[in-house]
Amino acid sequence: MRTTVGIIGAGPAGLLLARLLHNAGIDSVVLESRDRAYVEHRQRAGILEQGTVDVLRAAGAGERMDREGLRHDGIELRYDRKRHRVDFPALTGGRSVTVYAQTEVCKDLIALQLKEGGPLLFEAEALAVEGADTGSPRVRFRYQGSEDVLECDYVVGCDGFWGVSRKAIPAELTRVFERTYPFGWLGILADVAPSHDELVYARHDRGFALLSMRSPSVSRLYLQVPEGTDAEDWGDDEIWTELERRFETADDWRLERGPITQKSVTPMRSYVHEPMRHGRLFLAGDAAHIVPPTGAKGLNLAVGDVVTFARALTHEKETGSAELLDTYSETCLRRVWQAERFSYDMTTLLHRAPDATPFEDRLQLARLERIAGSRAAETDLAEGYTGFPFG
Amino acid sequence: MRTTVGIIGAGPAGLLLARLLHNAGIDSVVLESRDRAYVEHRQRAGILEQGTVDVLRAAGAGERMDREGLRHDGIELRYDRKRHRVDFPALTGGRSVTVYAQTEVCKDLIALQLKEGGPLLFEAEALAVEGADTGSPRVRFRYQGSEDVLECDYVVGCDGFWGVSRKAIPAELTRVFERTYPFGWLGILADVAPSHDELVYARHDRGFALLSMRSPSVSRLYLQVPEGTDAEDWGDDEIWTELERRFETADDWRLERGPITQKSVTPMRSYVHEPMRHGRLFLAGDAAHIVPPTGAKGLNLAVGDVVTFARALTHEKETGSAELLDTYSETCLRRVWQAERFSYDMTTLLHRAPDATPFEDRLQLARLERIAGSRAAETDLAEGYTGFPFG
Repeated sequence: MRTTVGIIGAGPAGLLLARLLHNAGIDSVVLESRDRAYVEHRQRAGILEQGTVDVLRAAGAGERMDREGLRHDGIELRYDRKRHRVDFPALTGGRSVTVYAQTEVCKDLIALQLKEGGPLLFEAEALAVEGADTGSPRVRFRYQGSEDVLECDYVVGCDGFWGVSRKAIPAELTRVFERTYPFGWLGILADVAPSHDELVYARHDRGFALLSMRSPSVSRLYLQVPEGTDAEDWGDDEIWTELERRFETADDWRLERGPITQKSVTPMRSYVHEPMRHGRLFLAGDAAHIVPPTGAKGLNLAVGDVVTFARALTHEKETGSAELLDTYSETCLRRVWQAERFSYDMTTLLHRAPDATPFEDRLQLARLERIAGSRAAETDLAEGYTGFPFG
Repeated sequence: MRTTVGIIGAGPAGLLLARLLHNAGIDSVVLESRDRAYVEHRQRAGILEQGTVDVLRAAGAGERMDREGLRHDGIELRYDRKRHRVDFPALTGGRSVTVYAQTEVCKDLIALQLKEGGPLLFEAEALAVEGADTGSPRVRFRYQGSEDVLECDYVVGCDGFWGVSRKAIPAELTRVFERTYPFGWLGILADVAPSHDELVYARHDRGFALLSMRSPSVSRLYLQVPEGTDAEDWGDDEIWTELERRFETADDWRLERGPITQKSVTPMRSYVHEPMRHGRLFLAGDAAHIVPPTGAKGLNLAVGDVVTFARALTHEKETGSAELLDTYSETCLRRVWQAERFSYDMTTLLHRAPDATPFEDRLQLARLERIAGSRAAETDLAEGYTGFPFG
């Protein structure tokens, strides 16, 4: 099998890349180790930055998003029983975010790819990337019971944190930057209308809580829990009671309860692999970097990476210059580090570390008061939340 | 002895308070444990916020400051061999800071006090504040070999971190917030013109460095050193060589050397005592709170405290309402916590912790790139540096 761009992984990064390349007249093959149903149903992020929305729309993948996605012009910060709304368009010159789940983005892109794109193989497990530093890299993979090889001009690893792509970059050329957090998120899906029409980020002495939504009738809620918590240790009533406590306000705001349909724990990690390119192998999305979910940067970072790659390869095809391909890693990493910083800051602003000192608690409140009281600080947050520019 | 306001400590807080009260027609007595020469020569901060300059001028204590102080319209951030200037007036609607040493502020205020103010007793050691929660608090003190008592309507403790005032607030009513840092500043005075006309804050893998000045011919320079460092362990050449390394740039900027006339190590600490008032005892300045020197907030916070007290007492005299006196602690603490936050952020932005991880190093660089690249983030810093509003 042979193609111009071998793409490993059919998450949002790999699928969007295939679409962008297709639109630019560049052929690709996507290999995905899981089956289609799995890819279309794994719960992940749900907030699309303004730039991500623009890219999906321009790629012809925005039709259902525009119909069903919920445009959000702000978030609420909640602390010390106070409520402060951050107005994105007013602070950023009109930018906003859209609530539209990653699973839906994937469904839309899969449908498009199968209808008019190149090959997309499910249950095709990449085993290794070989010859990354030669002119003709290859992906060895297993498909329908036998091993095969995909010969490519370029390989893009969109196979996530646990994928094989990253391993093809020699350790001696690699630097890894990492931070773990002593807590995770217990997330639930509940069949109840969201109790607020925008996301609510709550800092509470008992820990962080987030009110989010999947649709006008499905709530998505999160509680900070200790690292290693088992979701099954939490009864449904216990979850609602704890959510009520952490979302407490001085006014008569109320959290509506409803049947919990899904429950899981997400660990929290910051991770960056440098460089993001080795020869003709390019890493994109979680294969190269992880952010904690606070601030919802993961999917949006992946989109930035593949936009940068598609632009660089198009430039090479049009001009013969590999300049943008050569600077892929630096270009992506500038944005990655801003998102890492933002996600770290949002995380430490709102979560209560198990060993937090009284000084650190007061510092959190002072930061929140600063955001609520200074247009500059609030704009800094709004710019970060609605997204850093690509490339 | 009897007065309306007993002031303990003739640092900038106590001296300015005496001046503000004098101007408002309220009598006071200042007790200072050290002699005049000591107070006039101890090296401390040197950056006056816009608001501090305005207050000194309005109090009639700004004549020499206006003549000899150096108005600074910005600072330079230096990192990764890059230089970025933060333009204060452009970002804050015209605000700036003034380089004028604390020792000079004290000299000016002492001269005024002795010429036209109330009693200012040097070598008068306060021993205890008594009856703070009664209508007639007292300061017991030792003066010229014997013990005496100062009877007051109010006592203001401006006697610094090691003073006796704070101890008069019962421990069970008190909360202390504290953070120490595993490094200090080795500071030098040198007889050489400053190598840059504004302050330079340098973040370097070897540690923080600060270029500052006392006058057009005297440089004040600092190096981050490990906690517990003895200034005498550092030879003069060694200091200059290390400063050169940390101030390195990609261009041809050069650090000029000169004879070092003073050398000392400052420890770094964040500390807040809540509340700042107990009955008729009020704490001001370092007696209630300490900030690390990064960002130069210490003196300016003290000024905010005594302005708040003078305003509150004047209000009480004019209207009979103790409302502003009653809210003194909350009013001051709002500003104190913003300054604590700012000082902590400037410190952690620029210093290298001994146990810093590669992730934290990159985070520092990403923060600096953000300040250099976003007007919002830069404005947030400029607002903090030029000073938070009083009260």
